[in-house]
Amino acid sequence: MKKKKKPPRMPHLYRANAKKKHQLPGSLIYTGTSTERPVLVTIFDYNDADYKEKQIDKIEDCFAYDNHNTVSWINIDGLWDTDLIGKVGQGFNIHPLTMEDILSTSQRPKYEVAENCIFVVLRMLTFNDETGSVESEQVSFILTSNYVLSFQENTGDVFDHVRNRIRTAKGKIRKMGPDYLLYSLIDSIVDNYFVVLEKLSEKIESVEEALLNDPNEQCLRQLHLLHRELISVRKSVWPLRELVNGLVHSESGLITDSTERYFKDVYDHSIQVIDTIESFRDVMSGLKDMYMSVVSNRMNAVMKVLTIIATIFIPLTFIVGVYGMNFKYMPELDYKWGYASVWGVMILTFIGMLFYFKHKRWF
Amino acid sequence: MKKKKKPPRMPHLYRANAKKKHQLPGSLIYTGTSTERPVLVTIFDYNDADYKEKQIDKIEDCFAYDNHNTVSWINIDGLWDTDLIGKVGQGFNIHPLTMEDILSTSQRPKYEVAENCIFVVLRMLTFNDETGSVESEQVSFILTSNYVLSFQENTGDVFDHVRNRIRTAKGKIRKMGPDYLLYSLIDSIVDNYFVVLEKLSEKIESVEEALLNDPNEQCLRQLHLLHRELISVRKSVWPLRELVNGLVHSESGLITDSTERYFKDVYDHSIQVIDTIESFRDVMSGLKDMYMSVVSNRMNAVMKVLTIIATIFIPLTFIVGVYGMNFKYMPELDYKWGYASVWGVMILTFIGMLFYFKHKRWF
Amino acid sequence: MKKKKKPPRMPHLYRANAKKKHQLPGSLIYTGTSTERPVLVTIFDYNDADYKEKQIDKIEDCFAYDNHNTVSWINIDGLWDTDLIGKVGQGFNIHPLTMEDILSTSQRPKYEVAENCIFVVLRMLTFNDETGSVESEQVSFILTSNYVLSFQENTGDVFDHVRNRIRTAKGKIRKMGPDYLLYSLIDSIVDNYFVVLEKLSEKIESVEEALLNDPNEQCLRQLHLLHRELISVRKSVWPLRELVNGLVHSESGLITDSTERYFKDVYDHSIQVIDTIESFRDVMSGLKDMYMSVVSNRMNAVMKVLTIIATIFIPLTFIVGVYGMNFKYMPELDYKWGYASVWGVMILTFIGMLFYFKHKRWF
Amino acid sequence: MKKKKKPPRMPHLYRANAKKKHQLPGSLIYTGTSTERPVLVTIFDYNDADYKEKQIDKIEDCFAYDNHNTVSWINIDGLWDTDLIGKVGQGFNIHPLTMEDILSTSQRPKYEVAENCIFVVLRMLTFNDETGSVESEQVSFILTSNYVLSFQENTGDVFDHVRNRIRTAKGKIRKMGPDYLLYSLIDSIVDNYFVVLEKLSEKIESVEEALLNDPNEQCLRQLHLLHRELISVRKSVWPLRELVNGLVHSESGLITDSTERYFKDVYDHSIQVIDTIESFRDVMSGLKDMYMSVVSNRMNAVMKVLTIIATIFIPLTFIVGVYGMNFKYMPELDYKWGYASVWGVMILTFIGMLFYFKHKRWF
Amino acid sequence: MKKKKKPPRMPHLYRANAKKKHQLPGSLIYTGTSTERPVLVTIFDYNDADYKEKQIDKIEDCFAYDNHNTVSWINIDGLWDTDLIGKVGQGFNIHPLTMEDILSTSQRPKYEVAENCIFVVLRMLTFNDETGSVESEQVSFILTSNYVLSFQENTGDVFDHVRNRIRTAKGKIRKMGPDYLLYSLIDSIVDNYFVVLEKLSEKIESVEEALLNDPNEQCLRQLHLLHRELISVRKSVWPLRELVNGLVHSESGLITDSTERYFKDVYDHSIQVIDTIESFRDVMSGLKDMYMSVVSNRMNAVMKVLTIIATIFIPLTFIVGVYGMNFKYMPELDYKWGYASVWGVMILTFIGMLFYFKHKRWF
Repeated sequence: MKKKKKPPRMPHLYRANAKKKHQLPGSLIYTGTSTERPVLVTIFDYNDADYKEKQIDKIEDCFAYDNHNTVSWINIDGLWDTDLIGKVGQGFNIHPLTMEDILSTSQRPKYEVAENCIFVVLRMLTFNDETGSVESEQVSFILTSNYVLSFQENTGDVFDHVRNRIRTAKGKIRKMGPDYLLYSLIDSIVDNYFVVLEKLSEKIESVEEALLNDPNEQCLRQLHLLHRELISVRKSVWPLRELVNGLVHSESGLITDSTERYFKDVYDHSIQVIDTIESFRDVMSGLKDMYMSVVSNRMNAVMKVLTIIATIFIPLTFIVGVYGMNFKYMPELDYKWGYASVWGVMILTFIGMLFYFKHKRWF
Repeated sequence: MKKKKKPPRMPHLYRANAKKKHQLPGSLIYTGTSTERPVLVTIFDYNDADYKEKQIDKIEDCFAYDNHNTVSWINIDGLWDTDLIGKVGQGFNIHPLTMEDILSTSQRPKYEVAENCIFVVLRMLTFNDETGSVESEQVSFILTSNYVLSFQENTGDVFDHVRNRIRTAKGKIRKMGPDYLLYSLIDSIVDNYFVVLEKLSEKIESVEEALLNDPNEQCLRQLHLLHRELISVRKSVWPLRELVNGLVHSESGLITDSTERYFKDVYDHSIQVIDTIESFRDVMSGLKDMYMSVVSNRMNAVMKVLTIIATIFIPLTFIVGVYGMNFKYMPELDYKWGYASVWGVMILTFIGMLFYFKHKRWF
Repeated sequence: MKKKKKPPRMPHLYRANAKKKHQLPGSLIYTGTSTERPVLVTIFDYNDADYKEKQIDKIEDCFAYDNHNTVSWINIDGLWDTDLIGKVGQGFNIHPLTMEDILSTSQRPKYEVAENCIFVVLRMLTFNDETGSVESEQVSFILTSNYVLSFQENTGDVFDHVRNRIRTAKGKIRKMGPDYLLYSLIDSIVDNYFVVLEKLSEKIESVEEALLNDPNEQCLRQLHLLHRELISVRKSVWPLRELVNGLVHSESGLITDSTERYFKDVYDHSIQVIDTIESFRDVMSGLKDMYMSVVSNRMNAVMKVLTIIATIFIPLTFIVGVYGMNFKYMPELDYKWGYASVWGVMILTFIGMLFYFKHKRWF
Repeated sequence: MKKKKKPPRMPHLYRANAKKKHQLPGSLIYTGTSTERPVLVTIFDYNDADYKEKQIDKIEDCFAYDNHNTVSWINIDGLWDTDLIGKVGQGFNIHPLTMEDILSTSQRPKYEVAENCIFVVLRMLTFNDETGSVESEQVSFILTSNYVLSFQENTGDVFDHVRNRIRTAKGKIRKMGPDYLLYSLIDSIVDNYFVVLEKLSEKIESVEEALLNDPNEQCLRQLHLLHRELISVRKSVWPLRELVNGLVHSESGLITDSTERYFKDVYDHSIQVIDTIESFRDVMSGLKDMYMSVVSNRMNAVMKVLTIIATIFIPLTFIVGVYGMNFKYMPELDYKWGYASVWGVMILTFIGMLFYFKHKRWF
Repeated sequence: MKKKKKPPRMPHLYRANAKKKHQLPGSLIYTGTSTERPVLVTIFDYNDADYKEKQIDKIEDCFAYDNHNTVSWINIDGLWDTDLIGKVGQGFNIHPLTMEDILSTSQRPKYEVAENCIFVVLRMLTFNDETGSVESEQVSFILTSNYVLSFQENTGDVFDHVRNRIRTAKGKIRKMGPDYLLYSLIDSIVDNYFVVLEKLSEKIESVEEALLNDPNEQCLRQLHLLHRELISVRKSVWPLRELVNGLVHSESGLITDSTERYFKDVYDHSIQVIDTIESFRDVMSGLKDMYMSVVSNRMNAVMKVLTIIATIFIPLTFIVGVYGMNFKYMPELDYKWGYASVWGVMILTFIGMLFYFKHKRWF
């Protein structure tokens, strides 16, 4: 028997936000894992002609960007500093329940349309090549007619090419308003879903490969882990369709007609993501059935070997047993050809058995 | 074999309310388990400036709180005293069928909008750490423009922090009307669902753990119990989404615009609860499949051991049987190297078998 | 092996109404089992002040009750006498297709609103404690502004307490119109569903019990019977929700506002019945999975016993076989401690095997 | 082993209409199996007072029946003569695509409302008692205000009693318009579905019976065939509900108010058919589960027999093997009671084993 | 054991378009497999009177065909030359996002209605008889009031008969506008789905055949491959219904009333395709269940053989073992009829066993 490798630890199925339980509605409580490194606030301020990129130290500085001349993208990396986040909420005049949602980092993706702003919560999925698992981070956006505010749990995101486009004025981004910026950011997140899906499909294929060649408990465990991973990705992605559709049809006036066409594109993509996840689920469920079938099949093969050996040799052993008896009067024992005849009978029995099994197609 | 522990008793699947069968519509019949301890009536009467907290002995005293100056929360713990409950119904002018619903303690969660009041029935779920199972209690609310009436089966609830907020005037509760109070109470119940979900997720994970290491009938039984527990939690929670949505869109005028935003928050939470339950079901069904697979796998392993041993030794036993025969004329028996040759043949057979099994990857 | 009890006969899955095939639309053909005992026609004629209860011999007598002064409930037990039923149809001016539906006793529950009347078909379920199975009977109602006509296949029903309420003027029934009478009758039927559900839940629990302790083919067969019983109950109950909802929203004017509230109560109950049936199905499907798992588990246990015994004794038998050979030159046979050594080897092998199985956790 | 009967040939799963592929839209290509026997055209021409029944030789003769005085039913048996069918299309002024649909004999049931006519395609199911399988034939109807045109693939149908009613003026048919005739024809088809369902239910029950008594591969194959048969019946019947509902609500004016009531009856029947098919599927899926369970159970029983025998006799064989050894120094062999003691030990072992298995409830 | 054939390589489950990731929206990036052979542009320009067919070398030449006198069909085979495709987009004034969709060759089928044009993306499925698998290619159409633009990835399509109809003026195509041309092209694609379905049905049937006769791992693998193939075909076809329905109801004015009737025909076909795929899935899932059942059955048969042989011979071997013991005092050994009696006992045991197994119906 191969030495069993220590199986990877199963991730937690669900953890309620213990810290948050029974708090005042609108309380600012960060439910993620706190990290004490400084919160990073960066600003992109641009219009068709020019752009500024700046890292902000004093949070009050960024309130100045709420003006009509330029489009501003204020990105906040890190949510543990609830005081600072609270100031942002007050500075930009955001509803306390919205602020609470931003900090509760296990939100279901959703959008809300308020008087002057649209609030969007999404899950940014990335595939960690080292651990080989999907990682999930909550990203919130607030869109007004002047700026886009984005909140992330950790540094590191999928927005670098959006930043590059602003810097290099590539594409339409510098010519369009904050709604197009929001589209670009959401589009980046959804685009990355496809990358995650590809990685997952590779994992499924590798399990499929293993399962067809050597189905063991290791690949059963992997299948189970993949199943749970898929359930959790699905939970993150499923509400997306409704969300993007709602955004397009919200009559807030914040999303212009020219950008609408782009959001419809994101909508198409989100349907494609969901379709693909559903087909993964379908394949996975097929793999489980196949695992059972392969195992049954193998057991059948093992049983056949046992049956063939036992069925051939148990009767033969009986025959030799007969002539091992010590009765006084056993006439065969004295025959000259007795021993040879027994061999003859046994060989014939043996050959008969082989033909029987051949006929039964057992090998 | 390990000594089998006495398995826990399965809870009842369903019990009709025998006591209630074929009663007059609107009859006040308590269908829960009667307890003779006194019914507890407590009142919180507050406005922005002040609050009173009081326990009431004579039920008629509480009818005085139906006025516009303050918000009153009249909480009734214990439903067995149907006379007293009947007086409450008459005093506050509640429809007999509504009173009947309050006392029938296996209601499906629902809401009803009457002329001047909204009636809400919910199930309060709590996790009993001692028995390790989910407990369920029916809670009913009646909201008018002046007060919130709440009915509970037993003392002990999840409303303590709401009481504290009223006492300490923390948050908005003292500044808002009874609709906000109703929201706070419902929100507490829904918040506690998350705690229950966490406990259930721990139970699922522990079964998962057991199942992957040592799948036995004990964990099958636990899986089955969990399955039934989940079915019953789901039955309690599923109607919630529709209920909260209906409350928000009911045009009773009892729920003000400013509170609506808070109910939408509860709505989001209830969808999250349902999503999580569905993903639990999904994981559970995966666990069942895995149980079958693991058991099949183990049986396969057992079969292989049997087959290896039998396949190796049965032919060898045949060989030694041959030379145990008592024929007069068996030339091999007289050979000097006969015995040694037989050993040689047997050792070669043995080694050949090992290679065969190695080739088949049986170990 | 236990003596197998004769298994109960499976009920028929479906039988088309051979008698009815290709008849004229509106033909009065009774599709149930005819019984020649006389059809029973009873009348309750009541208003707030008074009531009469009477058994009618000549069917023409009951047409007189179609008047506005009193509410009449004309109940017809037995449908085999199609002539008599035809006279009823003509006397009360009922559409031929409706009459046909009343006599076709395998109708799907439905309602129809005609000009002056509402037609409702339901299935009355009762649990027969002797046979231990659910029995189903079709009940039809016709509601006009003056009377309720009810048709039953057999004598014996669940309406006795309604009769008592009319007799004793308990509750509102004597003060209300025929719509409230219809509600009372339908409510009785739905109330009895809960009783049936309880009986079914007991049967499920008893199978569950058996299955966890001693899973044999008997409880498989019971599970299958229960499954079929549940399918048939579900078919009877499922259309109910839509039916009651339709009744409430039908704009026939026959159902008054004050009764509507009561029908909504029946609607809630019918949803509860459906919910419960669905959860039964869920539990049943879990039981089937468990059956398979338990059987697999038991087989595993059996296999382990076989493997342990075979794996220990087959090699030992080989060893003793070796020294049963009759070779002339077998030095061990002549050693003084030969026999003892063989015992020693065998005991060591035995202990080694035990440790191996212990290590594998096979017992 | 029983001699395996030659299994029945599986019917084809699906065959595309090779002949029709990539033809001009509106081409008249018959996709069924051509038969060269003459196409039969029969006419029923009737009103309240009189009726004529006639077989037509020259197709042009039937165009004269398009008039308001009488209701005409022109029935065409056989579709292979596309020229003739083409003339019918031109003579009655039918849209080419409709004509194409009539000839493509694997249409999904549907209806279409054109200016002056309604086009309905249905599948007529009949149960062939000889082959024991369901047969399916496409029937198309065209309804105008003057006549009903019906197209069938083969002679032989379920309309005989409609013909008899016209001949004998039984029922309303002679008093009503062509819409009532269409209803009568569709109703006949739907009525026959119930007969087919009954036959299928008998087949299911017979498999159920076999499966509970002696589950072998034969009944597995029958189950599979039934499953496929049910899938195909379902495909034919499922669109019916929508179709009949659509007919009732089509605002073509061709279906009069008095006939609408009759179509609603057909609608109820079609729901009942679908309900029954769904419950069959449910039962079938239960049967599959049960087959697996029964087979597992039987295997378990076989394993127990093997294990009991092997576990009892393998150790005993070892014991007798011990005393078959030829060691010089084996003191037991010389004891007077040695042989008897061994028998004693073996009998005790045997009894002990029996108790062990009894305790384990293995028999 | 048969030599295992090298199993066919599983196709990839999903590959994200790595090249396209995080590009500017509207970038022209071809995501298919580039081939350097020249892009083929062919034009059909026709009206009722005349037609021209021409291959175009300079892309600018085809812009001239945007006029009202004739209907033009501009077909572009090959998408790798993004410069050329870009020029087409500019020349015909197509939205950049539409151009991007045309080049992203893993689009979900969809349609979009812009001001003056309709954009349709479909998947053309063809069955490759050599590899025995379904091949899929993206085809995009742009319909304006003057022309139809079609984009294909590779040369070779299912449109030849449309070309022939234009050349020979067969059918209505030369008399109708570009909407009818679009219909003809889409209809060709959908017609070919039926051919693909037929091929798939043959594959399913051949697996079914194999599975019933000799269920081995080869047919398990084929079943799994078919399952995945069906999932992918379904993904391509499922959105079709919605697409065609949307086209018919789009109020663009580009689809005339006379063509609408033809699109409805395509709609019916697409429902039929989806119905058929669903029934395939149903059959496939039945096949999987049957595979498991057949394997279990076979294992049962193997087990019975083993058990019969072992149960007969193990006790007999014990008996002969007894008389192989070397005890000094074994009276039976000296009896004259001892040997014969043992044979008698053994033959009786043997016959008894046979009767037992016969009784148990094991053979």
